[in-house]
Amino acid sequence: MTLSNEIKMNLEKLFKPKSMCVVGISKKNPLSPGRIILLKNEFELEVNVYGIHPNGGEIEGIKLYQRLDKLPEIPDILVIAIGPDDTLGYIQECADLNIPASVIIGGGFAEIGIKGKKRQEKLEKIAFDHDIAVLGPNCIGVYSPPLIDTIFLPTERITRPPKGSVALISQSGGVLVDVFFNKFKERNIGVSTAVSIGNRAVIDETMLLEYFSKVDTETSNIAFYLEGFKNNKAREFLNLAKESEDTIITYFGGITKEGKIATQSHTASLGGNHKILSSALKQYYIIHPHSERELLTYLKVYDVTSKKKKPFRENIIVFGNVAILSVSGGHGVLCSDMLKKYGLKAVQFTDDEKNDMHDIINPTAREIASFNNPIDLTGSVLDTDIENIIRYLSDIQRIECIILLLLPYPPNISFQIGRRIANMISRKGKPIVCFIPYVEKYSLIIESLELSNIPVFHSIKEAVQAVSALKLRTRIHNLKKGNIFWEK
Amino acid sequence: MTLSNEIKMNLEKLFKPKSMCVVGISKKNPLSPGRIILLKNEFELEVNVYGIHPNGGEIEGIKLYQRLDKLPEIPDILVIAIGPDDTLGYIQECADLNIPASVIIGGGFAEIGIKGKKRQEKLEKIAFDHDIAVLGPNCIGVYSPPLIDTIFLPTERITRPPKGSVALISQSGGVLVDVFFNKFKERNIGVSTAVSIGNRAVIDETMLLEYFSKVDTETSNIAFYLEGFKNNKAREFLNLAKESEDTIITYFGGITKEGKIATQSHTASLGGNHKILSSALKQYYIIHPHSERELLTYLKVYDVTSKKKKPFRENIIVFGNVAILSVSGGHGVLCSDMLKKYGLKAVQFTDDEKNDMHDIINPTAREIASFNNPIDLTGSVLDTDIENIIRYLSDIQRIECIILLLLPYPPNISFQIGRRIANMISRKGKPIVCFIPYVEKYSLIIESLELSNIPVFHSIKEAVQAVSALKLRTRIHNLKKGNIFWEK
Repeated sequence: MTLSNEIKMNLEKLFKPKSMCVVGISKKNPLSPGRIILLKNEFELEVNVYGIHPNGGEIEGIKLYQRLDKLPEIPDILVIAIGPDDTLGYIQECADLNIPASVIIGGGFAEIGIKGKKRQEKLEKIAFDHDIAVLGPNCIGVYSPPLIDTIFLPTERITRPPKGSVALISQSGGVLVDVFFNKFKERNIGVSTAVSIGNRAVIDETMLLEYFSKVDTETSNIAFYLEGFKNNKAREFLNLAKESEDTIITYFGGITKEGKIATQSHTASLGGNHKILSSALKQYYIIHPHSERELLTYLKVYDVTSKKKKPFRENIIVFGNVAILSVSGGHGVLCSDMLKKYGLKAVQFTDDEKNDMHDIINPTAREIASFNNPIDLTGSVLDTDIENIIRYLSDIQRIECIILLLLPYPPNISFQIGRRIANMISRKGKPIVCFIPYVEKYSLIIESLELSNIPVFHSIKEAVQAVSALKLRTRIHNLKKGNIFWEK
Repeated sequence: MTLSNEIKMNLEKLFKPKSMCVVGISKKNPLSPGRIILLKNEFELEVNVYGIHPNGGEIEGIKLYQRLDKLPEIPDILVIAIGPDDTLGYIQECADLNIPASVIIGGGFAEIGIKGKKRQEKLEKIAFDHDIAVLGPNCIGVYSPPLIDTIFLPTERITRPPKGSVALISQSGGVLVDVFFNKFKERNIGVSTAVSIGNRAVIDETMLLEYFSKVDTETSNIAFYLEGFKNNKAREFLNLAKESEDTIITYFGGITKEGKIATQSHTASLGGNHKILSSALKQYYIIHPHSERELLTYLKVYDVTSKKKKPFRENIIVFGNVAILSVSGGHGVLCSDMLKKYGLKAVQFTDDEKNDMHDIINPTAREIASFNNPIDLTGSVLDTDIENIIRYLSDIQRIECIILLLLPYPPNISFQIGRRIANMISRKGKPIVCFIPYVEKYSLIIESLELSNIPVFHSIKEAVQAVSALKLRTRIHNLKKGNIFWEK
């Protein structure tokens, strides 16, 4: 089934709703999903919130209506957090009342076997017949700040990432919340919308790819956690990805035989052969990281470049030629090893360039520093040395990106170092990625850089992955523009 | 040269000194390395501290002596933080005064070329002729709590790990401090002694392997960061490792051609061919992690097992058969994929076992939970469900280790969950490794577990690596006992 115009409209209602209504609110159990959703939206978000309870009454001052047709307005979304048979009844009511979108939290559908599959078929028929944008069943819903958050986990138990350019679509609610939310927050990666598709009876990854590519203007990067494509829709997904102006990133679970078996108990779907999958994804300009960490590093880089500001404008070109600047020889060595692994290259400095760099740093460091690439300024480094060398490297055109390994341990490195580097780099517009150890007391330095859109990573490997991310995107941008020399 | 008995004695003076003396204290520059070392040892550590300054005087109330022979006692260690030519003079004084050990912070030796190489040869001759345990030159020294810390970086700039079973030996001071110290602290891995060997003119990795294996009783695990073995000593190192009762772990920088080039500017040594190296290390029972993260995970596991307490006694046997317990289907899938990658196996449950587990959890979760391996208790999980399932799994003998993927987001998981699991596991003595997201607010749960010697990791991958670490050690223990069936 292709995306009808009505469902497209209704997806907008799902992600940009003015009002929502919740069924499945327990008056006894404060931790019931329906009740958590009702209260968090009422008290923390902007959407108008209504609740349904067969006996009416109220919860924390919010009036509960006995039936959907008693509400003062037709809500944009009905969130259903009740058993599967009653759920079907409510979806029929959405059809009758022209409620355009619904989020079904509960399970008991295709994932539990034959009986559930039949239920799901009924659900699909009603939804498709009436163009209802149904999310789920068996999902944790949608988070679209500042409007709506149907995730039934208490807000204080999770960490919300900042607002940004990345749309997240996940076949697993747990992965959405944990891998995406928590780790996005930790890494300062911005999210536009997060969607848990669960059994994807109606809304699936392909529809969402189309929606976020073509309709949503806040999103520039679309990331998926999938355990396989929805039946017969892989081709459509790939074609949409190839046409999209956004950057598309997929991460798959269930790629081994063992993992596949595990998915059967989860969302009744299977991953394909991983090698064939990888090569297909590459061919359709989809970025496909090898690990969770790589995924997060890529998304951080793509989110920063989406800000279209210096030093990482969106059209930045990186073929892989870098300069490594370190204050520790060992870190330089480990970074060099890593470059090789990611197909990147340390540019060679001429003797003149080495002499120039030798002359612009302090006399003590000068005697023991090394000006190969990696450059090692040693523990005798001063703030001004780092500043001077970065200024110098910025003017060397064949260096596409600087990798700065900044250990703030040497005694003469000051608290101002982050701001000094940020100012220099912002003026020069030279792409740079930084490694700074993840230690609370260095957050002042880290924030100085990140406020100026310079991404900071907490391992050498991630800093190298970040450059690799830029290289991958340069390739895709070129291919999309028809510059096929990349494929040689 | 083999380790003479005198140097062996003198290594003990280096690591367990009663007194130390520092030369190279600047009265003007509060950040001079000598001054930092003087003050941090006087104010933060237990060793008796003396300082030398040609003009005498005092710094922060510490009397400075004009010459070494004026000190009230012969110190165990002379820390030299001055230029290379004067350094040689002071090493000669160590010989004359019978000072048994010295740490040379400064560079200007083999790492700078021919002139420096000659200096280093002179240094070596004096040291070996007089059995002086010289560390360095071009190193950041030794950290042996609670006695001594010659690391010239201000203490407040680094993070010190807790006291424990791991001895660290690093060819790079930066890697020692950053990879080891900071990340050990972050992961709660305990250190016995940390040593930066720099140019390893006299004391090298092989001597230290012998010392920590045979002499030091606090150390059970010996970890190395190397960029190659010292000339002609690889064989001796390997043989010592094979005989050692401790667990030996090596991590190499400079394993690619590019990385090797980088090492030349660093400590004038080269890594060998990595594949040959890996296979030699395996043959000599040396554990050789593939990444920094794997290294840290292994060390965390080995440190915990060194406590010889439940559930991870030192002789724990893990061939690789695990049970995965999750509250998120997606996490179970990703963990299954990862098991495969590390050569581990999810045991199969019988129908009876599945039925038993079905019966002992709450009715809501029961309907949607999955009892394959991975077990997914879903977001409807209660504390008691986790407790009951762990109790049940603990009694299944063919499960050697449980991997618990504990997302604390489901609303009914309480703050007590960590302690409840810890008590259950401590009683049952079943090995378990946990994944809990790295979020400050969950530290109460994390600490409940770690206080009971249950290691907690912050990614699924690390939890799986932890079991892999146990499997590797089981292999080595068996081989050392002559049980060669492992090699089939």
